[in-house]
Amino acid sequence: MPELAPVLDQIDRSVDESLERLFGLLAIPSISTDPVYAAECRRAAEWLVADLQSIGFTANVRETGGHPMVVAHHEGEGPHVLFYGHYDVQPVDPLALWENDPFAPAVKEIEPGRKVITGRGTSDDKGQLMTFVEACRAYKKVHGKLPCRVTILFEGEEESGSPSLKPFLEANANELKADLALVCDTTMWDRETPAICVGLRGLVGEEVTVKAADRDLHSGFYGGLAANPIRILSRVLADLHDENGRVTIPGFYNGVEDTPPEVLASWKTLERESESLLEAVGLSEPAGEKGRLGLELVWARPTAEFNGITGGYTGEGFKTVIPAEASAKVSFRLVHRQDPQAIRDSFREFVRQRIPADCSVEFTPHGGSPAIQLPYDSPLVATAQCALTEEWQKPAVAIAMGGSIPIVGDFQHLLGMPSLLVGFGLLDDRIHSPNEKYELISFHKGQRSWARILAALASERVEKPD
Amino acid sequence: MPELAPVLDQIDRSVDESLERLFGLLAIPSISTDPVYAAECRRAAEWLVADLQSIGFTANVRETGGHPMVVAHHEGEGPHVLFYGHYDVQPVDPLALWENDPFAPAVKEIEPGRKVITGRGTSDDKGQLMTFVEACRAYKKVHGKLPCRVTILFEGEEESGSPSLKPFLEANANELKADLALVCDTTMWDRETPAICVGLRGLVGEEVTVKAADRDLHSGFYGGLAANPIRILSRVLADLHDENGRVTIPGFYNGVEDTPPEVLASWKTLERESESLLEAVGLSEPAGEKGRLGLELVWARPTAEFNGITGGYTGEGFKTVIPAEASAKVSFRLVHRQDPQAIRDSFREFVRQRIPADCSVEFTPHGGSPAIQLPYDSPLVATAQCALTEEWQKPAVAIAMGGSIPIVGDFQHLLGMPSLLVGFGLLDDRIHSPNEKYELISFHKGQRSWARILAALASERVEKPD
Repeated sequence: MPELAPVLDQIDRSVDESLERLFGLLAIPSISTDPVYAAECRRAAEWLVADLQSIGFTANVRETGGHPMVVAHHEGEGPHVLFYGHYDVQPVDPLALWENDPFAPAVKEIEPGRKVITGRGTSDDKGQLMTFVEACRAYKKVHGKLPCRVTILFEGEEESGSPSLKPFLEANANELKADLALVCDTTMWDRETPAICVGLRGLVGEEVTVKAADRDLHSGFYGGLAANPIRILSRVLADLHDENGRVTIPGFYNGVEDTPPEVLASWKTLERESESLLEAVGLSEPAGEKGRLGLELVWARPTAEFNGITGGYTGEGFKTVIPAEASAKVSFRLVHRQDPQAIRDSFREFVRQRIPADCSVEFTPHGGSPAIQLPYDSPLVATAQCALTEEWQKPAVAIAMGGSIPIVGDFQHLLGMPSLLVGFGLLDDRIHSPNEKYELISFHKGQRSWARILAALASERVEKPD
Repeated sequence: MPELAPVLDQIDRSVDESLERLFGLLAIPSISTDPVYAAECRRAAEWLVADLQSIGFTANVRETGGHPMVVAHHEGEGPHVLFYGHYDVQPVDPLALWENDPFAPAVKEIEPGRKVITGRGTSDDKGQLMTFVEACRAYKKVHGKLPCRVTILFEGEEESGSPSLKPFLEANANELKADLALVCDTTMWDRETPAICVGLRGLVGEEVTVKAADRDLHSGFYGGLAANPIRILSRVLADLHDENGRVTIPGFYNGVEDTPPEVLASWKTLERESESLLEAVGLSEPAGEKGRLGLELVWARPTAEFNGITGGYTGEGFKTVIPAEASAKVSFRLVHRQDPQAIRDSFREFVRQRIPADCSVEFTPHGGSPAIQLPYDSPLVATAQCALTEEWQKPAVAIAMGGSIPIVGDFQHLLGMPSLLVGFGLLDDRIHSPNEKYELISFHKGQRSWARILAALASERVEKPD
């Protein structure tokens, strides 16, 4: 087992050099969604290959139908980990809102003692992925080896829907399959509190269109006689929640697990922050299931949300029409072991039961994916939690994310391996917006965190998937 | 009292001449909404003045801020009636869909024994208003006098919102006020069944906007935590009706009267027709208050209808947004003595009670007018019913209209006189559409009907308004 302390020292000594390297990568405008920047995407991939080769990885640019992948391998004695990140970035418009050139990265002191790295891709995801590369570099420099066997996968299409990722994973499953995936594309809880993301909610999207008369009707002639699809649809949507905010679809909560009391207790200490999450958008009352923590609602409870609704006359003024149809976009966030297909089916049945005999309903599916959940008591989580807590001197919290990260599902389903999601971004990093930044402390202590996690993984027995 | 029989004979003898005169009026393209036709509107007004003068009326073109009015007076011994009609017509586009030139009127036999007059304005409203003028002409020809004192008001802006009508009524109230208004702008029940319209529903329009967060939110991060305005709005709309289809706003039914059993009985004989009204638009189930006749629902019951709804993402595909706001256009059709302002106030209170403390709601009023109702047992209705029943040899039904005719409210409120609405149009006359027509039998027996009604009014004591 290579000793950890000198690795951490090496990281501390080389902060400036690691920053210089990061600037080199940040200067490449690898905007994946705009074909004009295709050559820049390739240049970023080549930059990474060269950098990984310089620290002893066998690294290659690998062609896909779109922007290339970077795949790199390094031997090691411990467990085999697959580290994932993406080198592509979001577009930068509106350019006028940037205080600095987005591709001329800089370090700015934004308040006494608080420095940030500015530029496109600093937080999402170049700065984050380089924390891992720098940790490996320090190990190599000090010990000439890594504590784990490491495979690296960097993609260049994350910001444009990852069209090549799934086929690439399928085609290269044997090469990429490891004991465990490490993903560095998430956030800390706040600037001082490290976090491990153990849950990602799944999603079922449905578009519902209720049809009544075969044309728009005059509400004077037909009002009170003809079915009104807005009224039918409103009733359906209103029926979806009971007075306690629970979703009323039969079987909806099948597969939802209770959150362990100790996890709830740790979230309770964070609860004031979730209130400020509401305050930040002008609200104050958690609107989901009654009697539950705000954080539990977004991290560990499923929802039915209405994302859009339309029907009848929606322009200026008024038109006394009874429309022929009305439609809504409805989505369900799933947790734990909820079954997307079962929920889609039950929802459709629930709606059909509320449609009058002379009306009809049509459904259009919009995506469906199950939730991802690492058991809160998984040894993997405990290992990472210890490492992070030691580095940041504050207990690392097991958080969840309300949204989805498709790659994690793909690792689970295509390669049969669990993912450990640890990231050092902050919610105010303005990813996808002008003036993106990454805290200098995230970049520095992120490197140290990965060094600790690799050491901890090497010394503990990693639970293998079934 | 001038004898009726020779007047009816005179009408029968002069059908061809009356048709020729109508064609003269129909040939004038008096489209009020298009400024290009302003001179044609004036020409139609002048045509009517000349025609009324030719049968002994004192008639004048009267200026307004828009198209002119025609006002004409004729002495008579019986009660004083004000006859209203409009000489302006709807635009004719799409012209390509017309089988004949809309301003080259013609008579066509559309099935054996069924002739119709084709052209723009035949049914709405030139053909209808000329039935009354021709009845007066026949009286004058046979007896040299009219059975009632008659004032005529023809406007030229009915198809463009009647902007000049109310000021004109106010400025000329003394001149125009009569015992009773006769309005010929409605329909028969069917081709064989005459009808008197005794009720017109009122209207209250409201736009409701529910506001939650101060921006659109990502449903992954905020779903289950932040209030969703579509959900709140759906709940409000769903709550507006109970399981029996009754509107649940407190006090909503104040001022609503029971329909007399004998009126319900007469509507019951027509009920099959209201079913075909639903069938015509692809429906089969009356959707209003349970246990009531379809015709009662549209003619004698108030409603809450949803005319439009919008919120969130309504484009193609899906967007996992929790919108900042959602809004609906809601209208109430009122009957009998329901108070528009009281209903608007109660509705707003009803909505406010359902808005969470950290959300808000805004209202925009869109029109409000009370219902108009002639008592079913009014002597006026009985008189007109007898006259029509005798002419058509089928009981005239007292119907109501689901929609509003603002002029009737103005006559009531500005001039303090009731209106008798008798018309000979049919629901399939395609008013406002290409190939408008008016049944020849409507034009002929319409004239005879007015001759009978004038005779009946002269011989009965007309109930004066309070």
